[in-house]
Amino acid sequence: MIMKKIINNPDQFVDEMVEGILLAHPDQVRTPGDDRRVLVRADSPAPGRVGIVTGGGSGHLPLFKGYVGKGLCSGVAIGNVFSSPSVQQCADAAKAVDGGAGVLFLYGNYGGDVFNFDLAVDLLELDGIETRTVLGCDDVASQPKERAKDRRGVAGIFFAYKAAGAAAERGDSLDEVAAVAQKVVDNTATMGVGLSPTILPTTGAASFDLPEGEMEIGIGIHGEPGIHRGPLGTADEIADQILDSVIPDLGLAEGDRVAVLVNGLGATPLEELYLLYRRTHQRLEELGVVIERRYIGEYATSLEMAGASISLLKVDDELLELLDAPAQSPFFREA
Amino acid sequence: MIMKKIINNPDQFVDEMVEGILLAHPDQVRTPGDDRRVLVRADSPAPGRVGIVTGGGSGHLPLFKGYVGKGLCSGVAIGNVFSSPSVQQCADAAKAVDGGAGVLFLYGNYGGDVFNFDLAVDLLELDGIETRTVLGCDDVASQPKERAKDRRGVAGIFFAYKAAGAAAERGDSLDEVAAVAQKVVDNTATMGVGLSPTILPTTGAASFDLPEGEMEIGIGIHGEPGIHRGPLGTADEIADQILDSVIPDLGLAEGDRVAVLVNGLGATPLEELYLLYRRTHQRLEELGVVIERRYIGEYATSLEMAGASISLLKVDDELLELLDAPAQSPFFREA
Repeated sequence: MIMKKIINNPDQFVDEMVEGILLAHPDQVRTPGDDRRVLVRADSPAPGRVGIVTGGGSGHLPLFKGYVGKGLCSGVAIGNVFSSPSVQQCADAAKAVDGGAGVLFLYGNYGGDVFNFDLAVDLLELDGIETRTVLGCDDVASQPKERAKDRRGVAGIFFAYKAAGAAAERGDSLDEVAAVAQKVVDNTATMGVGLSPTILPTTGAASFDLPEGEMEIGIGIHGEPGIHRGPLGTADEIADQILDSVIPDLGLAEGDRVAVLVNGLGATPLEELYLLYRRTHQRLEELGVVIERRYIGEYATSLEMAGASISLLKVDDELLELLDAPAQSPFFREA
Repeated sequence: MIMKKIINNPDQFVDEMVEGILLAHPDQVRTPGDDRRVLVRADSPAPGRVGIVTGGGSGHLPLFKGYVGKGLCSGVAIGNVFSSPSVQQCADAAKAVDGGAGVLFLYGNYGGDVFNFDLAVDLLELDGIETRTVLGCDDVASQPKERAKDRRGVAGIFFAYKAAGAAAERGDSLDEVAAVAQKVVDNTATMGVGLSPTILPTTGAASFDLPEGEMEIGIGIHGEPGIHRGPLGTADEIADQILDSVIPDLGLAEGDRVAVLVNGLGATPLEELYLLYRRTHQRLEELGVVIERRYIGEYATSLEMAGASISLLKVDDELLELLDAPAQSPFFREA
């Protein structure tokens, strides 16, 4: 594979990228210590405010570090590309944002991340910092409904950041913030499609093999296998295949209300995301489901992977209020 | 070329994309007539407010239709992919946004666009609608400084939309809004780099040829030739090559103040844009130039082209105030 990347030394890719973020947004994020792999809100800790810490591998911007900001996450632990952050980084992020009200760990369900964040929980307990953990597990392609808790976390975690972040911002307790995050996770379903792989900066290797002209429905954001591989379909066919899984997974029926996220995985133009939104809108309208909010763009990527995902969140008045609350990070703004 | 596109019938690509935008953002944009290739602010016309109409070929989202909104453009005429809108569409957009204070045509300097917008000016004159025209011409690679008015318009037009839109919103006259736009154009310089071509949806043809592993510095957003083709450089080398043209073009010196736009052309990950920002920050800091604002993301694309551009706008207090004014469109928000 020939790399078409604008990078310097591949081993410095993540550190230089974080340096760029710190240079660009010093008013919004800072490193609490010497380790640039830990970023927190510039105004943290806030006494009495629940901290929300996320984290995971790099290569998914705006996930994860793009969602550190007002009304969103408080801190992030940053791993190498597609690799988990260390236990110490997870713990350091939590210590730096704890304002005495405890810390919610909110991240995607991947083995290495779970392992390290859980060890960080033990460390923090020794320091007397109370924690809760909620895992994003919205990828319906990765496990059947009966094993929903074992699903991978993908783009739908954006909804959890937004709602839980708003709850923390208004002063909810740790248990309340965790309950909001869990409620969002329980009502979110996502499925993606991949058209081309990601090329890893350090090795130049493709994240998965996909013959030219084929697509993989249900692909994970690191190239994990999906549920169907075949010739590239039309936009409407792709949307239909995704929605045929996502809509029944949430049990959506006439009168239900949803927020829609059409997410680009990296190389797919915004124009194409609007084609997917168009079909999603048609399908939900036919079903009598009300689209209350829609988000269309790159919210969780896999470097330069071509592809997209569609996430649905079943909403009620409480979740809508939290989605609409003010938020501001380097990558997302809700006035 | 095998197409890796999420589309339906290629001939319907633009219309379906516009339909998606209309379905997603009915509170923000509307079509004033039967022609979906004309979009205007949902709240237009506003009596006494100068209208700003832009337009051009499709395939550049968020250019152009993404910048129709409060504090930005009032309307847009939409062509096929990389093709000019019709005279009638340009005129219809202007008529729909005219609130009696006249209309500024603000678009990129391309032959077909200029030809059709100029004919629209004549049509509008018959209707008694006063117009001014300001052309984005920020691509320093396309012509030398002495012929700056003949340069192509690329991503830097974002700055002109933002500032002129704010001026119109606060009630400036047509001449004043045009003067703001011209001031921005006169103080903006951009250069891009292409790493891979765009594939046109209707033909499946590449927008330009570029051997694997090479890059083209100074490429245009339709694949127009640049000033240097060679082996792919590092992020720092690419930034340096661009800045070595852009900085002297604006005559930047110690104490000058700028806004920076690091723009992705489609397939390039946000991570890589932050590497370019990092080097840009270092270079400007060394020079003693103050970075007052920075914008990093996809602001003007070429479908799935891999590549990026760096734009600098020399600012003063007036322009900063206009950049910071509230704005809201489907693709950009400044609170």
